[in-house]
Amino acid sequence: NKIQYESLDYDVCDNALFQDEQRQRLQDRFSLRTNVIRWIIFILIGIMTALIACTIDIVIEELSELKYMFLKSSVDNNVPISDREGGDLALPFLWWILLSIVPVAIGASMVTFIEPITAGSGIPQVKSYLNGVKVPRIVRIKTLAVKSIGVITSVVGGLAGGKEGPMIHAGAVVAAGISQGKSTTFVKDFRIFKAFRDDHEKRDFVLGGAAAGVSAAFGAPIGGMLFSLEEAASFWNQNLIWRTLIASIISSFTLNIVLSAYHGLKDFTFTGLFNLGKFDQPLSFEYFELPIFMLFGVTGGLLGAAWNYLNMRINKFRKRYVPWKVGKVCEAILVSIVGVSMAAGMIYFINDCRPLGNDPTIHPVQLFCEDNEYNAVAALWFQTPEATVRALFHDPPGSHKILTLAMFTLVYYVLSCATFGLNVSLGVFIPVALVGAAWGRLIAMLLFYLFPAAQFLHPGKYALIGAAANLGGVLRMTISLSVILMETTGVETSFFFPLIIALITAKWIGDSFNEGVYDTVIEVNNVPMLSWEPLPQYKGLTAHAIMSQPVICIKRVDSAHYIYDVLRKCQHNGFPVVDNVEGDRRSKGRVCGIILRSQLIVILLKSLYVENKHFWLPETTIQTFRDVYPRYPSIKSVRPLDRKINYTVDLSLFMNHSPIRVNAHDCVPKIFNIFRALGLRHMLVINNENRIAGIITRADFIYK
Amino acid sequence: NKIQYESLDYDVCDNALFQDEQRQRLQDRFSLRTNVIRWIIFILIGIMTALIACTIDIVIEELSELKYMFLKSSVDNNVPISDREGGDLALPFLWWILLSIVPVAIGASMVTFIEPITAGSGIPQVKSYLNGVKVPRIVRIKTLAVKSIGVITSVVGGLAGGKEGPMIHAGAVVAAGISQGKSTTFVKDFRIFKAFRDDHEKRDFVLGGAAAGVSAAFGAPIGGMLFSLEEAASFWNQNLIWRTLIASIISSFTLNIVLSAYHGLKDFTFTGLFNLGKFDQPLSFEYFELPIFMLFGVTGGLLGAAWNYLNMRINKFRKRYVPWKVGKVCEAILVSIVGVSMAAGMIYFINDCRPLGNDPTIHPVQLFCEDNEYNAVAALWFQTPEATVRALFHDPPGSHKILTLAMFTLVYYVLSCATFGLNVSLGVFIPVALVGAAWGRLIAMLLFYLFPAAQFLHPGKYALIGAAANLGGVLRMTISLSVILMETTGVETSFFFPLIIALITAKWIGDSFNEGVYDTVIEVNNVPMLSWEPLPQYKGLTAHAIMSQPVICIKRVDSAHYIYDVLRKCQHNGFPVVDNVEGDRRSKGRVCGIILRSQLIVILLKSLYVENKHFWLPETTIQTFRDVYPRYPSIKSVRPLDRKINYTVDLSLFMNHSPIRVNAHDCVPKIFNIFRALGLRHMLVINNENRIAGIITRADFIYK
Ligand SMILES: Nc1ncnc2c1ncn2[C@@H]1O[C@H](COP(=O)(O)OP(=O)(O)OP(=O)(O)O)[C@@H](O)[C@H]1O
Ligand SMILES: Nc1ncnc2c1ncn2[C@@H]1O[C@H](COP(=O)(O)OP(=O)(O)OP(=O)(O)O)[C@@H](O)[C@H]1O
Ligand SMILES: [Mg+2]
Ligand SMILES: [Mg+2]
Repeated sequence: NKIQYESLDYDVCDNALFQDEQRQRLQDRFSLRTNVIRWIIFILIGIMTALIACTIDIVIEELSELKYMFLKSSVDNNVPISDREGGDLALPFLWWILLSIVPVAIGASMVTFIEPITAGSGIPQVKSYLNGVKVPRIVRIKTLAVKSIGVITSVVGGLAGGKEGPMIHAGAVVAAGISQGKSTTFVKDFRIFKAFRDDHEKRDFVLGGAAAGVSAAFGAPIGGMLFSLEEAASFWNQNLIWRTLIASIISSFTLNIVLSAYHGLKDFTFTGLFNLGKFDQPLSFEYFELPIFMLFGVTGGLLGAAWNYLNMRINKFRKRYVPWKVGKVCEAILVSIVGVSMAAGMIYFINDCRPLGNDPTIHPVQLFCEDNEYNAVAALWFQTPEATVRALFHDPPGSHKILTLAMFTLVYYVLSCATFGLNVSLGVFIPVALVGAAWGRLIAMLLFYLFPAAQFLHPGKYALIGAAANLGGVLRMTISLSVILMETTGVETSFFFPLIIALITAKWIGDSFNEGVYDTVIEVNNVPMLSWEPLPQYKGLTAHAIMSQPVICIKRVDSAHYIYDVLRKCQHNGFPVVDNVEGDRRSKGRVCGIILRSQLIVILLKSLYVENKHFWLPETTIQTFRDVYPRYPSIKSVRPLDRKINYTVDLSLFMNHSPIRVNAHDCVPKIFNIFRALGLRHMLVINNENRIAGIITRADFIYK
Repeated sequence: NKIQYESLDYDVCDNALFQDEQRQRLQDRFSLRTNVIRWIIFILIGIMTALIACTIDIVIEELSELKYMFLKSSVDNNVPISDREGGDLALPFLWWILLSIVPVAIGASMVTFIEPITAGSGIPQVKSYLNGVKVPRIVRIKTLAVKSIGVITSVVGGLAGGKEGPMIHAGAVVAAGISQGKSTTFVKDFRIFKAFRDDHEKRDFVLGGAAAGVSAAFGAPIGGMLFSLEEAASFWNQNLIWRTLIASIISSFTLNIVLSAYHGLKDFTFTGLFNLGKFDQPLSFEYFELPIFMLFGVTGGLLGAAWNYLNMRINKFRKRYVPWKVGKVCEAILVSIVGVSMAAGMIYFINDCRPLGNDPTIHPVQLFCEDNEYNAVAALWFQTPEATVRALFHDPPGSHKILTLAMFTLVYYVLSCATFGLNVSLGVFIPVALVGAAWGRLIAMLLFYLFPAAQFLHPGKYALIGAAANLGGVLRMTISLSVILMETTGVETSFFFPLIIALITAKWIGDSFNEGVYDTVIEVNNVPMLSWEPLPQYKGLTAHAIMSQPVICIKRVDSAHYIYDVLRKCQHNGFPVVDNVEGDRRSKGRVCGIILRSQLIVILLKSLYVENKHFWLPETTIQTFRDVYPRYPSIKSVRPLDRKINYTVDLSLFMNHSPIRVNAHDCVPKIFNIFRALGLRHMLVINNENRIAGIITRADFIYK
């Protein structure tokens, strides 16, 4: 019952038809045109991704504004003050719960009933896709729609999650959609961009889309490019990186224009987006702070590893005990209610009043405070998590009580851990950063309490370092994260150093316990991801140890019946083409190529037999095969062949005649490197006479 | 007479001895240790590179200070003022010439007579090395020493060049030196780090060294990493990039500490290095400036392309008409004299006096100006080019006359063009940036003169954009350049956008005329660099078209005589090992592996014959072969074999039994991709029976 993932064909199928096309392209100036179109698509990807991100952004902001303004006035009107009747705080509490569970319920139901793949952040799925695994339905427009609505409802509902992951996923969908010029959801083919309809091109575009998504989510173009590289790309190519960078720059630029216009900045001065807020003064640090940053890293690594472990346990529990769809929706609602109750409890019981005036909150809630004061706890809760991160970074020193922050850290740590894995579309970046910012600020406050002379203990700075450390501990990325944090808060480039110190320490500590949260999700879902380097246990093994054999092969000229039977009987997607076969012992034949299941199905469907060659030969091109991309019909859609007809198929024209071959005695680490570097799907193992000895696919590396 | 470059063996030779070692490593916890050592080496590389960069930096600064202070006082004492006798400006002029040609002569002689490979920037050589070409003597300690002294003397001599290129080269040498634990220059083997003695590991370290060099040269850690990626790396691997980043961070950090200490910053606040000076106010821009940035890009592209063309012509001329060594030294001296004369002429004839007070120059020269004024032209020339770039970025508006800047741009454009290609160690980054900054500032001043109301025309900002555009036009890098400029001037991350706009436009415009300056150097030297993507003319070709045949092969068990003869007769470095040979027709044999010339020589030298197996077999390990790395003895050092002895060699133990094989019918673009992605040196072409059909090496892609 293990889910079977298929792989992508990153290796371009290089058959006779393809070479015909290549030769034609050589004549007309096709390749220049293709190149220009490719650039245009990358630019379009940047723009579209940014527009979608803007929409999500603005809708979330407006709705949250409405929600929290209403709640604030409800609190204000119902505070039991001596000289007023009927003050009952139960009313705003109920409103709060209602305004939380309604959106959450909508979001969770959409995700659960319409498109379950949209649950969670989306980054693990995009990562798997870029690694070469075909994650079903991951880049459809329907997925995008559900994900967008899902993330809006969940964030507005007040769940402990962020919109960043889904935005990156959105970028990937947009890229796949635009580049293919057709949509499966709408069953619409725009008949454009046909040259890009293969897995290789599509995957490159998706890389650009992911970068554009990061860039739009954080306003961080360099961060976006580095994110794609660090997390996703496995094959380095200057031109590709170039295009990726352009997509992410265009994306952040578009975002900036639209959001500037929306916020009513008339003079159109480009100031960067800084959606975690820009620090007023340049942050500086002194050398003796480095050990403190390292300690922050250690803390972040430990807390992060614990978070990952807890989250994994919770999700395993969930998978086991909440298998029903309705149950999943209820669970989301439950978490939402618990969250609101805990927040309400904190606000009610902790009496943290601060003078109005230097307060940065837009809707200060007075509650039990004096006039001219506001409740600092409510200020933390009555906004989106992103706004809270911003507050923790930029609130002036002395905006919070130590108790408040300690409680808040604890509650949010647990809440975020319980939230990630619910059946809602939510990313993990913001809540993790929030927890980190909270404990970072907390520690700075404690230290300052102990050493009041230490002027360097700027709480905002330490909140930032805490956020970095916590992110490093949970996500285990470093380069892209530090650049993203730099770009999104506009700190000096010299502050890169403390950030990366904290991140690297956190990653090292964390890595000695468990894997990053995205990798855990991938592992739990049994996605066959290839690691960056050959695993240590491969050492000393030869191809023999991992290859599958006997191999189901097809003769260069084989009977249609045989092919039909093979396709019905097995689920493999690639079959070596052999010749020089003695009798029917195909699996001892001499390798001359490889053919894909999808191609065989097209051959059978279109009856491309030797016997009726004169009918189809003139009009069959590589386009015939590309037209059915990416959703090939199954073999069931082929009518069973009439038993009496002895048609044959000549694969010379269709097979990829340069499959990668390795020898049965080659060692596995080397084979792995080739497989990984070339992004292969099938690798043929041959013996010394060039006869087929075995076949290696992704599955063989993972499960053997 | 074409220089023959050899390639590096990036592909790990996977023979029986190697696998033995692997199996041993599996037992003890060797691989963890290796990993830790690898990290330590990367950290050491960072530290050492920074220390060398610091030394170069400080020495240049001190010597230039002395030189220009002396010149200033000499000018001051010899200005012909009415009430003083004997004022004669010829004296300081002659001093200036003397103080310029002496260092230049020293530098040029060292480069010319001791180590000619150190001429120029060093970046093209490092780039070729990382592409897989063995550039002789490029990573020796002697090279480093000559290069360091060379760059110091040339910059102090006042040539139009910078120290950045040589520093990057220094990083590469340091990396190669440290990682190998031995030095050819000092004939010293420290007997450490033996596991890293192969081309694969060394190349990875050199990548880190180059990054550390960039980082030390500019104080730009992210820029360093991106530089390595954009210009150099061809194979993407997360761990490698990680280590590279660490090396460059450590490097910039070390640099910072040392330089802070040197400049006497007591409080050790880490502020970043900003060696092109930090902008006081954050630079911002408005949307309508974008077209201006693009126009800057166009200008930069055109000027850059012209610069590259001119430079190429000058260098061709040079190569043809100045072949003698002494002539080359004289040429350098000549350029130096011309430079000084032009500068002196400008200072003498242009009377650009500015009030003292808001002047940023350290040694203001009064010359013919009133008291309380200083000569703004002299201020441009009486310092290192780097300091002038800094001045152009940060001088307050109105520090220069339009005429001054125009003349300066012109003179420096010509000077820098004539300088790059001289036999001195000098980089091209700073002079190109300087020219760009000059015309950038000039244009801003002109525009401001036309539209006095345009407040946005901050001259420093436009100098920066001009520098970026000019760099883009000459060097044709984009991502790393923009990040380097950002890091080195500490501008806001939001200013990344204008920088990249200017850079990309400049690159596009420039690319439509010719190649970047580094690539031109590489091409002129006939270095067989592999491009990023298969060339268009490969389309439609098959392996047949480019492979060499017949191939010189060696039988699995062959006579020592035959091997000796083959090695004497041909210069190839790789020989397919074949079996199943009919008679002596080796070149029709069945492929079973590949063996390198170096291995064969070791076999002959150490007499590893079948007949005396019992002597050597027990103590022969992979280390036997590694010990002679990287400078294998030549075949001439092997004593001719006694004709009578019929010793045989069994290659089973030594050959790499998993060479990459492709079919003779495979198409060339695909073959190229495999070759490039796996960093191969030899690729065997086989026919359908696994018999050898041809061989492909780097040379076949370049010259066929
Ligand atoms: N033609 C074949 N004959 C025999 N075994 C095969 C063949 N193709 C694949 N296998 C083996 O079957 C197992 C499952 O592979 P699977 O059929 O899923 O490969 P695939 O679908 O072609 O590729 P992927 O699943 O990576 O997209 C693997 O162990 C693989 O080695
Ligand atoms: N063993 C061989 N037999 C025949 N031709 C060869 C052999 N090895 C290389 N060649 C061919 O000789 C030409 C020069 O190659 P060269 O001998 O320089 O290769 P190499 O030295 O082994 O590799 P490199 O120069 O890249 O380090 C190329 O065209 C190549 O294809
Ligand atoms: Mg499968
Ligand atoms: Mg050679």
